[in-house]
Amino acid sequence: MDRKIRVAVIGASGRMGREVVKTVLTESDMELVAGISRSSGPIDLGKMVGLEECGVKMSNDLELALTESKPDVVVDFTGPQTAFSHTSLAIRLGIRPVMGTTGFTPQDIAELDKQCQDKGIGGIIAPNFSIGAILMMRFAAQASKYFPHLEIIEYHGDQKLDAPSGTSVKTAELISEVREEMRQGNPKEEETIEGSRGGYYNGFRIHSVRLPGIFAQQEVIMAEQGQALKIRHDSYDRAAYMPGVAIAVRKVMTYSGMIYGFEHFID
Amino acid sequence: MDRKIRVAVIGASGRMGREVVKTVLTESDMELVAGISRSSGPIDLGKMVGLEECGVKMSNDLELALTESKPDVVVDFTGPQTAFSHTSLAIRLGIRPVMGTTGFTPQDIAELDKQCQDKGIGGIIAPNFSIGAILMMRFAAQASKYFPHLEIIEYHGDQKLDAPSGTSVKTAELISEVREEMRQGNPKEEETIEGSRGGYYNGFRIHSVRLPGIFAQQEVIMAEQGQALKIRHDSYDRAAYMPGVAIAVRKVMTYSGMIYGFEHFID
Amino acid sequence: MDRKIRVAVIGASGRMGREVVKTVLTESDMELVAGISRSSGPIDLGKMVGLEECGVKMSNDLELALTESKPDVVVDFTGPQTAFSHTSLAIRLGIRPVMGTTGFTPQDIAELDKQCQDKGIGGIIAPNFSIGAILMMRFAAQASKYFPHLEIIEYHGDQKLDAPSGTSVKTAELISEVREEMRQGNPKEEETIEGSRGGYYNGFRIHSVRLPGIFAQQEVIMAEQGQALKIRHDSYDRAAYMPGVAIAVRKVMTYSGMIYGFEHFID
Amino acid sequence: MDRKIRVAVIGASGRMGREVVKTVLTESDMELVAGISRSSGPIDLGKMVGLEECGVKMSNDLELALTESKPDVVVDFTGPQTAFSHTSLAIRLGIRPVMGTTGFTPQDIAELDKQCQDKGIGGIIAPNFSIGAILMMRFAAQASKYFPHLEIIEYHGDQKLDAPSGTSVKTAELISEVREEMRQGNPKEEETIEGSRGGYYNGFRIHSVRLPGIFAQQEVIMAEQGQALKIRHDSYDRAAYMPGVAIAVRKVMTYSGMIYGFEHFID
Repeated sequence: MDRKIRVAVIGASGRMGREVVKTVLTESDMELVAGISRSSGPIDLGKMVGLEECGVKMSNDLELALTESKPDVVVDFTGPQTAFSHTSLAIRLGIRPVMGTTGFTPQDIAELDKQCQDKGIGGIIAPNFSIGAILMMRFAAQASKYFPHLEIIEYHGDQKLDAPSGTSVKTAELISEVREEMRQGNPKEEETIEGSRGGYYNGFRIHSVRLPGIFAQQEVIMAEQGQALKIRHDSYDRAAYMPGVAIAVRKVMTYSGMIYGFEHFID
Repeated sequence: MDRKIRVAVIGASGRMGREVVKTVLTESDMELVAGISRSSGPIDLGKMVGLEECGVKMSNDLELALTESKPDVVVDFTGPQTAFSHTSLAIRLGIRPVMGTTGFTPQDIAELDKQCQDKGIGGIIAPNFSIGAILMMRFAAQASKYFPHLEIIEYHGDQKLDAPSGTSVKTAELISEVREEMRQGNPKEEETIEGSRGGYYNGFRIHSVRLPGIFAQQEVIMAEQGQALKIRHDSYDRAAYMPGVAIAVRKVMTYSGMIYGFEHFID
Repeated sequence: MDRKIRVAVIGASGRMGREVVKTVLTESDMELVAGISRSSGPIDLGKMVGLEECGVKMSNDLELALTESKPDVVVDFTGPQTAFSHTSLAIRLGIRPVMGTTGFTPQDIAELDKQCQDKGIGGIIAPNFSIGAILMMRFAAQASKYFPHLEIIEYHGDQKLDAPSGTSVKTAELISEVREEMRQGNPKEEETIEGSRGGYYNGFRIHSVRLPGIFAQQEVIMAEQGQALKIRHDSYDRAAYMPGVAIAVRKVMTYSGMIYGFEHFID
Repeated sequence: MDRKIRVAVIGASGRMGREVVKTVLTESDMELVAGISRSSGPIDLGKMVGLEECGVKMSNDLELALTESKPDVVVDFTGPQTAFSHTSLAIRLGIRPVMGTTGFTPQDIAELDKQCQDKGIGGIIAPNFSIGAILMMRFAAQASKYFPHLEIIEYHGDQKLDAPSGTSVKTAELISEVREEMRQGNPKEEETIEGSRGGYYNGFRIHSVRLPGIFAQQEVIMAEQGQALKIRHDSYDRAAYMPGVAIAVRKVMTYSGMIYGFEHFID
């Protein structure tokens, strides 16, 4: 690659934003050109993340920062409220958006796709940039053709409000597209403690474990007489999403239009 | 040990009985002197289990077989219906009973204890001879003093009728004697699929996985900020109970009275 | 399927042979028409494997048994010495061979392929019929594109002679075709106990665990900052190969020629 | 407890020091009275660790800070060079030392014990404050009486220099005190890739896995015919040591003398 990809980070002082800043500063083919945060003063972005000074100071005026720094790509994990307006602004300025937020309607995506096409630039919107999680889901779905007897166990921190997790339900959906429909277990099965057999989804079960100190883990266990196949993904912290963000930053340089879902970048 | 321990096996043609026969034939300090089964002909017990001929043929008259073969110890996994009468008969003949069955009342045990004491011989009644399962339960209970946040996941074959398993409930009881009482998880937690959080027991959760090809497995996961302690026991088949049976056969030679629970032999 | 597939089993009294007999007797689209064994008397094959009498008695003359019973497919796990002659005989008689043995040279396979083509029948030779093992290897290789940092841990019984296992080396080869070449770990790493870092293969490590009671297990652990992806296959006994054998019996009915490697049947 | 335990933290700006500061600020029976660091300015200790302002500012004069703040207990993870002098200074000032460093000779410990006894205060020196690691080692050693066939697999980050880890060797030593001596595996076993069977220790094997993103994990796998017992401890980050540090801070208030090894506090 001849020149580095110029990257700006929106929400650079947030927990995900800091990880993105670190990633951009350490990837050799990327250059950090701006960081935007409403709540931080003009600190050096390198120092903020515990690395060397990088000479780029935090901005708090988004449009000004983007106009002056002329990034190729903007990365934004700030959340659904501002997601559409940030994306739209970036495209208008000819900057490729890498959006790690939910909250876009199909109409939003269609419109943003048109805007990208018109500008001749690429963009991506993805609720999950974890390569490992995407591979786990894909492998589980593929294997369920041969191993229709399966259960999902997912592990998260003990303060998580909802069960089962979004990833486990997504996995269950993908499996259900492939797996022969069938109700597992003994039809006369009885629970002496209610709920012990887990949540029922389309013939199989999902179990949600909640314990302190666990970030996000999931195992799909598939079994037949004499054998078991286990596919497990453990995330320890937000760093888990960064290799995916780096891939996305490089990929959006190579096409026109808006892509929804990071799985399209993983073959 | 000067002379071998003479062992008879009741229900020798059953699935557990065959394993016991194999064990007695291969332990160097034991001698198989009789095998009793109502349904088998007079086949050689060694050949029946796929070993060399041992010269001992299956009997179908229990009292005659015990009287003639003069065993030191009798091992019986046949089941609750005949458990009391078999035990009582053995003691009357001065033979130490190793009973792998449930179905004894506290009164039964007290009476059999008195019979053993009168005869000056030892005996044991135990629903579970698995050393590994006993250690797993004990370690989990000990650790719960320091790791009160925990969940139990147990795995059995998909045709098992009841959930959770007896071993997991026993584990939960032993933990509850030690663990500080507390309700784990977020008080506002919500299940979007009912049962996904598992069965509730005294503040923590039990999850029962049922899949083909699994004999019996259990994991107790205990976690705090920054760490997890996992204690897991996997049984692949009935052979898992045999080291415990061998210990019991040797131990009953050394005391008077009836002991209930194999955990008393494991220090 | 209009009529059942007629299946003969060579080496029917062996450990794998018995499993195949059981499988053929229980799959509803197959019919057991012959079992051949040099060492057994004319016992009923159903009874031999602990099922009901099936009316087919063991033969000890291979050619006679095949000629009289007119099977569509013959399954043979007997071993390399007779593998070529059995395969060749089967093809000559117009019977599709499903061979679970090693020991064929590329020339052998080419010749058998021609024989199959000439007869217009299908055949398969495969050292491993385990669907789970094939999926594990395939998924590990695919994931290694994104997770080049990985190690393999394989577990077998403590009497196994060679380490690492054939499956782990095959996995390592498949991974190496995809994974970016790189030497993992700290270049200044030192072993204070020799061998603790495992066997070196093409930049990564293979660890061989040998313990009693384990049939065959393997885990490929792949990790990046903040996450790990684990793909594990556990085989508990020979039953693990049977779903693959059943697939093979059905597939050989559908093409002409000799296929090498069961992975070609798994998409 | 009537009044809070007053705690000072030496090396408060280091990675372990910050965790200790956080712990002291959040435990309800402790009060942070001083933090000492040579390299930091007079920042508020609460703010430094991302909590609310606590009103205690960082000092850089150790003796002055301890004299003025009059702590009951001092916690120090700074390292072997200053370990002895810091401990000695604390005792002289009547402050109970909780030392998380190595580098003390048996003579050092004997002398510091005498100093503690003379002052009538308690102290502890421990290379490892992880409760989970201590329980894992203890359970593995206890179980090895019944499960002498075992292997240890330990996992650390890929930049770790030495293999196997200190914890795995300590585990192996504790096991060897209990386990019947025996060389596991097939005597004719052969490695086709050198080192694949792991490091040899007293009849059993230790395997060291090194992968990015792993902090510290260890599993002891113990197996017999038909069963396996697995004891595993996973540490995700330095927070794993804090429950042990909190226990130590409370315990040193209750005795006189210097204790070596945190395992003495875990029953």
